[in-house]
This record gives sequence, C-alpha cells and structure tokens, in this order.
Amino acid sequence: MIYLDYSATTPVSYDVLDSYNKVSKDFIGNPNSLHSLGSKAKDLINNATKQISELLNVLEQEIIYTSGATESNNMALIGAARAYKRYGNHIIVSKLEHPSIYKICEYLESVGFEISYVDCDKDGLIDFEDLKRKVKPETILVSICAVNSEMGIRQPLKMIRQIIKKENSNTIFHSDMTQGLGKIPLNVHDTDLASFSVHKVYGPKGIGLLYKSSKIRLEPLILGSSKEEGLRPGTPAVPLIAAASKAIRLNVHDLDRKETFIRKLNEKIVKELSQYEGVRINQTKYSIPHILNISLPKIRPETFIHAMEEYEIYIGTNTACSSGEVSSSVMAVYNDQERASTTIRISLSYLTTTEEINRFLSCFELVYKRLSALARD
Amino acid sequence: MIYLDYSATTPVSYDVLDSYNKVSKDFIGNPNSLHSLGSKAKDLINNATKQISELLNVLEQEIIYTSGATESNNMALIGAARAYKRYGNHIIVSKLEHPSIYKICEYLESVGFEISYVDCDKDGLIDFEDLKRKVKPETILVSICAVNSEMGIRQPLKMIRQIIKKENSNTIFHSDMTQGLGKIPLNVHDTDLASFSVHKVYGPKGIGLLYKSSKIRLEPLILGSSKEEGLRPGTPAVPLIAAASKAIRLNVHDLDRKETFIRKLNEKIVKELSQYEGVRINQTKYSIPHILNISLPKIRPETFIHAMEEYEIYIGTNTACSSGEVSSSVMAVYNDQERASTTIRISLSYLTTTEEINRFLSCFELVYKRLSALARD
Repeated sequence: MIYLDYSATTPVSYDVLDSYNKVSKDFIGNPNSLHSLGSKAKDLINNATKQISELLNVLEQEIIYTSGATESNNMALIGAARAYKRYGNHIIVSKLEHPSIYKICEYLESVGFEISYVDCDKDGLIDFEDLKRKVKPETILVSICAVNSEMGIRQPLKMIRQIIKKENSNTIFHSDMTQGLGKIPLNVHDTDLASFSVHKVYGPKGIGLLYKSSKIRLEPLILGSSKEEGLRPGTPAVPLIAAASKAIRLNVHDLDRKETFIRKLNEKIVKELSQYEGVRINQTKYSIPHILNISLPKIRPETFIHAMEEYEIYIGTNTACSSGEVSSSVMAVYNDQERASTTIRISLSYLTTTEEINRFLSCFELVYKRLSALARD
Repeated sequence: MIYLDYSATTPVSYDVLDSYNKVSKDFIGNPNSLHSLGSKAKDLINNATKQISELLNVLEQEIIYTSGATESNNMALIGAARAYKRYGNHIIVSKLEHPSIYKICEYLESVGFEISYVDCDKDGLIDFEDLKRKVKPETILVSICAVNSEMGIRQPLKMIRQIIKKENSNTIFHSDMTQGLGKIPLNVHDTDLASFSVHKVYGPKGIGLLYKSSKIRLEPLILGSSKEEGLRPGTPAVPLIAAASKAIRLNVHDLDRKETFIRKLNEKIVKELSQYEGVRINQTKYSIPHILNISLPKIRPETFIHAMEEYEIYIGTNTACSSGEVSSSVMAVYNDQERASTTIRISLSYLTTTEEINRFLSCFELVYKRLSALARD
C-alpha cells in the first residue's frame, strides 16, 4: 500500500498510541474530581499543556483543547465575532481557506457580519495592497491560513500581521495552521488565534487545539460548568490530550531536513508528470512540497483516484473535507474552471519513500494513458 | 484501590480499548476521502452507527456524534432554541440538571430567551402540576434529565412527555441521559433529543452522542464543510466512534441484574451509615442505587474525601463538574443549605464488590469518627 493522502489525515504513530493506552489504563480519574485520581489526571493534563506550550512558545493558559481544527476555527471566528461585535462587524478572509472557514463566514453573514475576501496574486500570495485597502476601522477579525490545504501555498504571516495591525491595531488575526504544523516552522505570535489539528501530525482523531493570545477575549461556543474549564467545558479527554502532546512533540522537530527530503520527492514527481500532455501542475513558488496539486483535464478526479487504487495507491482530491467539489484554491490562483474541477492532491510525508514515488510514477503512467485514451474516444 | 466515583467517570474497558487500537491501526483513512481507505473508514462508522441505532432503537440518521455530553447538551438546547425561536422564546428546565444545562440557560437568557425552572416534590420527582402550569404556547423546549447526577433521581420521562405534549404539542422535549445510560433501561422515544456520554459507560473520553428525532430541526453549533457531515462537521474520530459503539453494546444489557446487585450494596451502605449520628442520606424512593448521596454536617466534603484517600478509597462530591460547590439537587429536594453544602457522592458500579463496600464501611467509621471529633472540638 502506498499512502499519498497525508494532508487528509496521517496514520497514528504507534508511540503516540502507546501513550494513549498507558494513560487510558493508568489515569482513570475525572480531572474535575477532587480526589487524588482526579488531581493525578489533572496534573497529567497540565504537564501535557506545559509541553505543548513550550513547543509552541506560548503561555499554558493560551492553549485550549477542542475536538479538532473545525471546532477550533469555529471557536476562533464565532467567538471573536461575538466578543468584539460592538467594535465592528467586518471580517476579512482569504480565498485560500479550508471550507469550514467559508461555512462559518456564511453563518456570520447571516447574523449581520460583513465578510470581505482578500485577493491573492498569480502565485497564491495574499495581495498585500488589497488587504491594506480592505482593513477598515470596523474590521474586527482577519483569518488567513498559514498553509493552504489544497495547493500548499504558504503565507508570510508575520508580514500579513504587520499590514493588518498597521491599518487597524485592534483587528484580531486568526490563522488556521492545520496544514502547517509538523511541516514548517510556525510562530504563533504572528497571530492572535491559531487553529491546529492533531490527526494531521500522526496523532489521534478527535482532538485539536486553539491558541488564544492572553491579550484577547472570546465568547465561548460551548457553555459548561466549572470556572476552571474556561472557554471549553466538558470532561477533558485525558488520554487524547496526552497523545496530542506526544504527537506534537514528536513532529515539530527536524522540519528542515524533512522538507529537503520531501522537496526532492516533489521535484521528481513534477519533473515526470510535466512530460505528460495535458497534466497541469498547480504549484507556485510559495507551495510547500508536502502538498502537490495537479489537474488532469478531461479526467474526473474520482475516476483517476479509483483507478490508482487498483494498484493500492491512495491519493486525494482537493481536500478531504470537500471531496468531489471544484477546488476553490485552484480557482483563486488560476481562475480556470476546468483546471479547478479536475484536481487531484498528492500529499507527501517524511515517511514517504523514493521507492513509493517510483511505483506511483509507474502506475500513474499506466492509469493516465489509459484514462486519457478513454477520454479522447 | 477502591473506586467509588463511577458517576464522574468510569475506567475504560480493555475490550473497548482493544477496539480503539485495532481501528487506529487498521483504518487509517479520513472517512471524507474518496479512495477506498476513506470509504473503509466511513463504512466502519456506518456500521458503528447502525449498531448504536439498533441498541437505542432509533434511525441511523438520528445519531449525531459529539465530543461529549456537554457538547450534546449545548447542541440540543442552543440548536433547538435557535431553530425554533420564531415559535416562542420560552424554555423550561428542572432544578435537578447538570451544571452545564444551567450555564447554557444563562447564555440563552442573555440572548432573549425566558427560562422557567420547574419544581420537584419532596422526593425529587418533577412536580407535574407545576410543569403543566409552566408549559405555555411560547414554550419551545423542555429539558429534564433522565437520572439526576447528584442524587440519582430518576424521572418518569414518558409521563413528563405526555404532560408537555398535551399542553403544547409543538414543545420539544430534551433529556440529558448521561447518568442513565448503562444503568437503567432508556426509551429515547420518550424524548425528541437526548444527550449521552461514552466515558460514563466504560468507553473513551472525548466522545458523546446526541439523539435527534428526525421530526425536529436543530441549528448547528459548529459550522463546517461537506453536506454529508450534517449537523456536526469535522473529520470524524473513527477509532472513538468504533470504541463508543463497543462500549454502549457492552453496557446496555443485563441492567436489571446489575441493578439488583448494586441495590444490595447501596442498602448495606445506607443501613450502616444511618446509624451514625449526623449522617444524612440524601436518597429518595426515586433514586437509582448506583448513585448514593450523603451529607456529613460540619465536615467539609474535601476534607472527608482526602481523608478517605489515605485508605485508597475514592469517592466524589456532588458532581465532578461542580466540585466544591453547594449541591443544587440536594437544595432543590431538601431546601437545607447545610445539608446541601456538605454532600459527598458514592457511586457504584456492577464492578463494585461486597468486599470493597465492607472495606469502605470500615474506613468510613475510622474517618468519620475522627473528623466528627475534630469538628466538635
């Protein structure tokens, strides 16, 4: 089996799973219980949070555990919109966001917020001039992802923050960092709010994080009981939190070396696939090599994916969360409907091997030739 | 170690943990991915949902996975309030709810809903006459828990539903069934919405359920991407869902036999503790035996709990989610401030043994006598 859909989800690391099991067996108390089984579980969470906060270089109280990046995005955008609505009703997002961001924006629009979509240039970079123009005194929030999920376009968050804050120092900057964690070095201090998912870094599904700068406020999305639980009440999922800490710890180091390796694999694929007539490489100078988007005009992505499956090779569409739809990122960058509706996404990991890529390329040739011939008929 | 805080959380069953591990290792795809690793994961979820829906005797599409009962309660109350606000702004809850319900009500009050609290009688039973009086044409929602978390008081949901629907057939009935699942037979068809937690039935933390009758609508709390994901978007936590199905399957049978056994243990404790001067048994004829609440006037619950810990016996306060606060349920039933502020909760499982209870009673004697003497000094 050759798995090339790491940006959809990653296989859980067995080390992480071991932590999950150990904690499940040894820390049975409810962290909210007063007895020592409760405080032992609470201490474990505090240690996990301390480790994560050190890895992200933030304060412990700036880490909020959620059920995943979708909830983190909701908590950030809806929470900030509600908390700051008396200062303005204007929100800006990029055209390269995860579908969940757009659904949240639709909701916020329905309750009276105005949403602006900032343009990007031909390489997918946020159009700084357009951003400058769009930040108004009423702009309470800007949300721009660190790494785009479909084409891997990486944004210069520090510069974006400077532009935003220069125009309106009160505007909050959120970044969905889901596709950045474990792939590129991240400085969450470029933002006020940042979303993370743990299952994208070889950790379990069902847990995510929200970084919330201690300088800003959010209205909670989920209401609950004790004051200590703060913004996200509910019995903390102790084993998931321990596993999250482990997964992040194991995956935020050595990123340069991993990226260099993955870039070679990416270049090898691009070099080979570019030789096929019709294949379009949806990659710009700002794309990270972990995510490689291509278009195969005249071939339905589902058809191609299922044909590759016959060789036990698993690749993705634009993004797992909007499988089968037109790639909004490819549209934003290339403004080409056919190109955007025929995308497949090959996502690589440091676990990917050269042998896997060689096999992928051989199978690609067989499948692409066969399907292209069928498409011509 | 003697664990008597099963209503706060239960130790995860090793069989359930095995399922979690197996699925984590063997089902690595994102269920939203188009390839067969994705559809294999999706099929697994569908099978889990089918099993749960059969166990609860509901339709598969009536099951929504959440991160836990707190989120389920939020989704039910806030979701129904938003979906039906044009029909009225009135909501009724009992005085025996989990703290999360009251926090949600505070929020709903702050955004314009009117909350009424229905009385209970001296045995903790919902006052039917009061309920009848309170259901108005504008009442869109009533929320009454199946089993109260502090004193284990069980409500006759079928009768309550009949009263509500007779007064206003459009009123939605939600029940927090968190403390009922795995302890008593439940008929979710007595309700339109019901909340469940998996970690209360020897399953993992971080997953809960909401039953939503197909006849009613909810506004989503968390917005997301694909249409298939419906009310609760985000990458489904495949291993947690499989584990939830296993935990529920293992724990909804044989309830009568387990209850008979637990009732004997409960009666033994009550009989012994009643002999101590000052000890008050906060139990009514409607309390299920799994939850035994007592008051130890003049002794701070924390002090007692920590003293019992020295013998490796772990008991709870009123509810883990409001540790250290006055028991709102004991106040509602007995209207006695001292009694309500000195409660401890002993919660029993079918895993509890007679030997454990004997040891608990011996240690109780030592600790209670020592702390009572100190309190008198």
